[in-house]
Amino acid sequence: MTDPCADTGLLGPGWAGSAAAAATGDAAFLRALLDAEVALTRAQAGLGLAPAGAVPAVTRAAEADRFDVAALAERARGGGNPVIPLVADLTGAVGEEYGPYVHRGATSQDILDTAMMLVAVRALGVVLGDLARTEAALARLAREHRDTVLPGRTLTQHAVPTTFGLKAAGWRSLTLDARDRLIRVRDSLPAQLGGAAGTLAAFTAYGAEDPTTLPAAYARELGLVEPLLPWHTLRTPVADLAGCLALTAGALGKMAEDVLALSRTETGELAEGSGGGSSAMPHKRNPVRSTLIAAAARRAPQLAATLYGSLAAADERPAGAWHAEWEPLRELLRLTGGAARDAAELAEGLRVDPDAMRAHLGLTHGLIVSERLSAELAPLLGRSRAGQLLTELARRSYAEGRGLGELLAEQEELKDLDVAELTDPTHYTGSARALTDRALERT
Amino acid sequence: MTDPCADTGLLGPGWAGSAAAAATGDAAFLRALLDAEVALTRAQAGLGLAPAGAVPAVTRAAEADRFDVAALAERARGGGNPVIPLVADLTGAVGEEYGPYVHRGATSQDILDTAMMLVAVRALGVVLGDLARTEAALARLAREHRDTVLPGRTLTQHAVPTTFGLKAAGWRSLTLDARDRLIRVRDSLPAQLGGAAGTLAAFTAYGAEDPTTLPAAYARELGLVEPLLPWHTLRTPVADLAGCLALTAGALGKMAEDVLALSRTETGELAEGSGGGSSAMPHKRNPVRSTLIAAAARRAPQLAATLYGSLAAADERPAGAWHAEWEPLRELLRLTGGAARDAAELAEGLRVDPDAMRAHLGLTHGLIVSERLSAELAPLLGRSRAGQLLTELARRSYAEGRGLGELLAEQEELKDLDVAELTDPTHYTGSARALTDRALERT
Amino acid sequence: MTDPCADTGLLGPGWAGSAAAAATGDAAFLRALLDAEVALTRAQAGLGLAPAGAVPAVTRAAEADRFDVAALAERARGGGNPVIPLVADLTGAVGEEYGPYVHRGATSQDILDTAMMLVAVRALGVVLGDLARTEAALARLAREHRDTVLPGRTLTQHAVPTTFGLKAAGWRSLTLDARDRLIRVRDSLPAQLGGAAGTLAAFTAYGAEDPTTLPAAYARELGLVEPLLPWHTLRTPVADLAGCLALTAGALGKMAEDVLALSRTETGELAEGSGGGSSAMPHKRNPVRSTLIAAAARRAPQLAATLYGSLAAADERPAGAWHAEWEPLRELLRLTGGAARDAAELAEGLRVDPDAMRAHLGLTHGLIVSERLSAELAPLLGRSRAGQLLTELARRSYAEGRGLGELLAEQEELKDLDVAELTDPTHYTGSARALTDRALERT
Amino acid sequence: MTDPCADTGLLGPGWAGSAAAAATGDAAFLRALLDAEVALTRAQAGLGLAPAGAVPAVTRAAEADRFDVAALAERARGGGNPVIPLVADLTGAVGEEYGPYVHRGATSQDILDTAMMLVAVRALGVVLGDLARTEAALARLAREHRDTVLPGRTLTQHAVPTTFGLKAAGWRSLTLDARDRLIRVRDSLPAQLGGAAGTLAAFTAYGAEDPTTLPAAYARELGLVEPLLPWHTLRTPVADLAGCLALTAGALGKMAEDVLALSRTETGELAEGSGGGSSAMPHKRNPVRSTLIAAAARRAPQLAATLYGSLAAADERPAGAWHAEWEPLRELLRLTGGAARDAAELAEGLRVDPDAMRAHLGLTHGLIVSERLSAELAPLLGRSRAGQLLTELARRSYAEGRGLGELLAEQEELKDLDVAELTDPTHYTGSARALTDRALERT
Repeated sequence: MTDPCADTGLLGPGWAGSAAAAATGDAAFLRALLDAEVALTRAQAGLGLAPAGAVPAVTRAAEADRFDVAALAERARGGGNPVIPLVADLTGAVGEEYGPYVHRGATSQDILDTAMMLVAVRALGVVLGDLARTEAALARLAREHRDTVLPGRTLTQHAVPTTFGLKAAGWRSLTLDARDRLIRVRDSLPAQLGGAAGTLAAFTAYGAEDPTTLPAAYARELGLVEPLLPWHTLRTPVADLAGCLALTAGALGKMAEDVLALSRTETGELAEGSGGGSSAMPHKRNPVRSTLIAAAARRAPQLAATLYGSLAAADERPAGAWHAEWEPLRELLRLTGGAARDAAELAEGLRVDPDAMRAHLGLTHGLIVSERLSAELAPLLGRSRAGQLLTELARRSYAEGRGLGELLAEQEELKDLDVAELTDPTHYTGSARALTDRALERT
Repeated sequence: MTDPCADTGLLGPGWAGSAAAAATGDAAFLRALLDAEVALTRAQAGLGLAPAGAVPAVTRAAEADRFDVAALAERARGGGNPVIPLVADLTGAVGEEYGPYVHRGATSQDILDTAMMLVAVRALGVVLGDLARTEAALARLAREHRDTVLPGRTLTQHAVPTTFGLKAAGWRSLTLDARDRLIRVRDSLPAQLGGAAGTLAAFTAYGAEDPTTLPAAYARELGLVEPLLPWHTLRTPVADLAGCLALTAGALGKMAEDVLALSRTETGELAEGSGGGSSAMPHKRNPVRSTLIAAAARRAPQLAATLYGSLAAADERPAGAWHAEWEPLRELLRLTGGAARDAAELAEGLRVDPDAMRAHLGLTHGLIVSERLSAELAPLLGRSRAGQLLTELARRSYAEGRGLGELLAEQEELKDLDVAELTDPTHYTGSARALTDRALERT
Repeated sequence: MTDPCADTGLLGPGWAGSAAAAATGDAAFLRALLDAEVALTRAQAGLGLAPAGAVPAVTRAAEADRFDVAALAERARGGGNPVIPLVADLTGAVGEEYGPYVHRGATSQDILDTAMMLVAVRALGVVLGDLARTEAALARLAREHRDTVLPGRTLTQHAVPTTFGLKAAGWRSLTLDARDRLIRVRDSLPAQLGGAAGTLAAFTAYGAEDPTTLPAAYARELGLVEPLLPWHTLRTPVADLAGCLALTAGALGKMAEDVLALSRTETGELAEGSGGGSSAMPHKRNPVRSTLIAAAARRAPQLAATLYGSLAAADERPAGAWHAEWEPLRELLRLTGGAARDAAELAEGLRVDPDAMRAHLGLTHGLIVSERLSAELAPLLGRSRAGQLLTELARRSYAEGRGLGELLAEQEELKDLDVAELTDPTHYTGSARALTDRALERT
Repeated sequence: MTDPCADTGLLGPGWAGSAAAAATGDAAFLRALLDAEVALTRAQAGLGLAPAGAVPAVTRAAEADRFDVAALAERARGGGNPVIPLVADLTGAVGEEYGPYVHRGATSQDILDTAMMLVAVRALGVVLGDLARTEAALARLAREHRDTVLPGRTLTQHAVPTTFGLKAAGWRSLTLDARDRLIRVRDSLPAQLGGAAGTLAAFTAYGAEDPTTLPAAYARELGLVEPLLPWHTLRTPVADLAGCLALTAGALGKMAEDVLALSRTETGELAEGSGGGSSAMPHKRNPVRSTLIAAAARRAPQLAATLYGSLAAADERPAGAWHAEWEPLRELLRLTGGAARDAAELAEGLRVDPDAMRAHLGLTHGLIVSERLSAELAPLLGRSRAGQLLTELARRSYAEGRGLGELLAEQEELKDLDVAELTDPTHYTGSARALTDRALERT
């Protein structure tokens, strides 16, 4: 029977069933907590602080199946964290001989923080995999649509033409920005080991000659970085995670917002590979992935804010700031992971309609190239006369429903001008191709 | 076997196992979604829009046990919300005859929004119960400690004396503020029914003469308020919930911060009824409930911010803003509910040490009543001379480790003054008792 | 010469030059601080705690022109708030005889909190004025466009038709929700008076028989509500302001997002009365007001979050939580005030293009009424056959570029059907008109 | 006369009068906007796109004194940003001959984004200067107090001893973390140049052969980094600033929270160099700098959240997301800059009371070393008997008011133990010194 309090994603279609969700669920945290305990025993045994026999004993006992997550959750209330009941159960499972070597010298926060870092490293691996798929698909789109011209839009209005290749290259650039930051943070995440108040004192009491060698050994066991100092209240690693995850969610959110805008029924320049159905309207094909990514991008900043807020943590362990980190960090990993999954699918399946894009270039009757015309006519007519003429023709263009090119061609004073060339929006894309090429060189 | 993605509270000791968690878990949401579907069928049958037989058929089929929450969660990805697969399963379970009357005329958002309101009403009931316990315990504390004097602290420093009764009355006042706002919001939460784009058009197509009567009937079935308009993108109810829940978490957070400050080992004026243990230090008695409440108070504002941010929802259903509401609203209900549980236990079990409070009144060598002395000496000595004398004696008091009263008593010019009375901190509590009494009259 | 640090709105086009900005600038806060000091003296004189002559003396001295805001700001650093240097200057200006009655018995927070409430009341008056203009303009639009049909959009896609009247009525409904909450909060804002630690003790020392009568007198002088308790650390009024202002910004943000979506060049159903120019493109008419309102709606939730976070305020005056309120509260008032100004102009000047709306109803080749057809064909063809047929015709409609109505008319089995009627989107608006009428009855 | 809307810091004692405020005020932004315009002209002249005479003409005209900031602010409303009126005024000031070369080919966002980066670089320089002072002072404190033992506190309760040297080394470590991230971000901030929609098209129209060389030249003029792509809607630089500034504010906030906790009247282990006065209580010495830093740390995360939220920016220039960045970014720079100023003063002036620290080690009657005793007694008495004995003696220690050492010394079975050594808290600091030394090696 399912725990009545359990959350299995009914309200989280953005992450339900994803690899990121599996990497960050309670089961994954339990696994990471046990991994930290095992590594602690191994590290101590390696330094002669625990008998060799403790290692297999603790390793064997630390099988996640033995532990009841929901019961641990409830028992966590007593001391305010799940490590306390977990250590009790693990010690019992190890048995009398080696039980004393479980968790020896450590504090709950050593284990919980280390587990958070393990979960983060594992989840970031998933995220990075999906960003790689996203990036590759976007590179392909950028190349494929290097010459696909569409209206550039600013403040919702057509501005000047651009290319879809440049748009896709921009999305890819953001994806790479996210990737670079995620990798940098992932490769910096430290194990945590400091004991009760961060002095490693208990290890001395248990006989270590130089306890400062222990965190390094412990970190090596776990594939984490050795910390310069115990960081119980020096929360840079958590803040760094907050930053790179919020950036990732937002970077993917940019692509999602663009897809949503260009998928609107009136625009229809883009469509998701396979749109979502509707419970009421059989014809609808909703941009569901973009929607879910956009939702994640709306939530991530505030989750990150809570984590940044926990930096100001008093004493050697704060009463609240630390506890406020756990769920937001998991949520941020899970949401961003779900968004990366959707982004990969979105980028890989995106349908582009170059004809619709081209057609829309004409919606402003040629005014989409008015910037060019201002520049080109000024030397011919003088700046002031050029401006007057364009304003007048723009007015007429809307009033008479005729193209700006047509009206220009009627101007006697411009009869030597190649108006067709000048007013062809597809010929006014500036350096869009060169910028796309340059952006694609980035790896 | 547990879903590997499931969250059962391992990282949430503040809510794990609470009634609020049970009222807001996926199972509770599933129940509420089904309740909304049943009510929709009942309301339509009541108005002659569905055959009477549909009601028992749908009601029978809508037993939560039939449905697989985790599977629904995954299938929700397709359309971006869990109602689409749920309606498919429910329709199947109802069977051929009455299946067509399931969800008829509604859109997914009608059901999901209504379920959110049902869950909110139910969870708020739990919260209000715990606030009532909290308020009663605080009233008792305020009465009991009406005359218990302790240092008032501002910017961490002793200011002038106050009473613990007034502190407790203040906490109670905040609790009542929270209660009043929760009740007001709870009693205003509307059912949602508008169909595909909020026009109720499908009900006309299905034969309703005046579909605007349907929302009222539907709301009645559910014990919710009839909406003035379909509120698919008029999200006042969600924003109102955000506000009253953030206020509640913060109101309880004030009590928690005070308990934490006065529980510090050096202060020890307060202690939680039964403190939390530590995995490393057998003697520790941690203020765990205050800690968990404080953690909730740190998270609630940012969750509320996401909900306020979703007010700016484009079109007849936004692509992202709506989806970003679901989990933060649940989280806010759950966190606040957990905090209210801890607050009730905290208030009921709080241990007050009046001796420690009284002892601390002397820590500033009498300077805690310097405000009073300024006021009393000015008429006798002139304002300027009074100020000089107090500054000089304050300096000597710290330098010589003698009380201000003792030094004052040595002043010839003040020999007629009742120095003992003037410097007794317990006699300088102003209107603390009267304010306490007044605050306790509020019900 | 301008203060080099001064902020006069260069980065705030959303509020620069607005009445809300004038009501919340440093000059307005200085005025409010002085008003609070004057009221304190008046209230004390009224109760016989200060000589009658003190009132005109303090009133005269409290002319804002005498005070140098920038210098006060810098001197505020010493004690962490601007009241300390202000009281010094005010006392000096009052002179020797009545100087001692300036600020007598009060603490800085009494004055600063009261000034915040005064500023809030004044700024809310401005906001409410602009909401009234907005609401009136929207009522007019709703009535005028009661029968203007346009596509309802969900997740960016056409869903079923709705009316612009209903959209405008929805915006108005949100505006009224905001108005109601702002008024409720405004009418509840209390004066603050408690003295050093909220016990009113100094007033006893200065001879008051019952100091609890003083806050009422003080509040009366200021037109604020009498507080039940000093609320130095019971911050409900600030949280209430946070909530109603975030709701207001979001409510206006909904309208702005809709205008932005429907102003897109491809859609062009709406346009701001007078669009904003562009520095580079002479033809552009940007929806500037909507843009600035949307920007405010993005910022308000996080400002509110900081204020909610300050509820958890330790002791009798917290070291940081209180200080973190001042600028976010001002910013929230100013931003929301600016947004309300823009909203009024937006609503009053909005240009609606019913022809564009009507034209867009045809963009889905008739599928915008597929919901209706499902409902109407099922009784004729059986549910399953009806579904198959519609799916098939929808496919053909897109493939052949022909309308769904045309294809339906070719179906032999449907030859008795009034296809023209059934597929006319303007005839499938359900209860849009009735809902609009009902919503307009709300005052 | 001061602008009635002006904000000169009356509500911002945390930044009023600081170098960071001067570097971020409207005057500084005006200067940066003009610098960007001048650089654009210089870069174009350098590439032969403008006549050489344009450079001195524009440079001369771009004297900030010529421009009226408050008037520009109001005129910014029309187009939604201040560059439009500024360009008009600047063009006028340059005069007919070279006026056409002002802002040529650029869009408002090119100038505004570039100015934001310039302001950020300049403000970060100020912040880094104050962090250097802070770091140096903390290094000195850490060395000086390498052997100063005080209680380590977790969840407000004494845990095990630590040293003040290690605490100071931890604060310094966070300061260096902030410094490293600020430098990395500062050195990556790019100029912005893309023209109307990021294609550099206008520069082609004005005759550039390869406009992609222009951004590099422009960036060089400004000392900013050349962007890979125009980043009008690729907002990584802004998000990076958000992250490093929120981290800095939080890092300083950690120190502030510790100083606040240890300054409490009952604790008094730390005091600010010169405390803040109080308007009501002459004896008070408030930890004002810590308070103001703590307030900044409470606000920064939400400001960063707004900036992260703006990553999801639609199109080639979003309607709102961009506009929502300006004031929060300035505020974040200003707040963090003010906090860094206060942190430098705090660290340089901090008063440490080693006697108070030592005295507090005895507050738990020796239980502060119970962890050590558990470890040491287990081999002698067996784990279970050792635990029982300690629990029993702890109980007696509190009940009888006697030290744990004294009670242990009475135990016959432990008569060979050096109880004095074992229970001396100053001898149980583990690796605190070694960790301090290691942390101080970081430069």
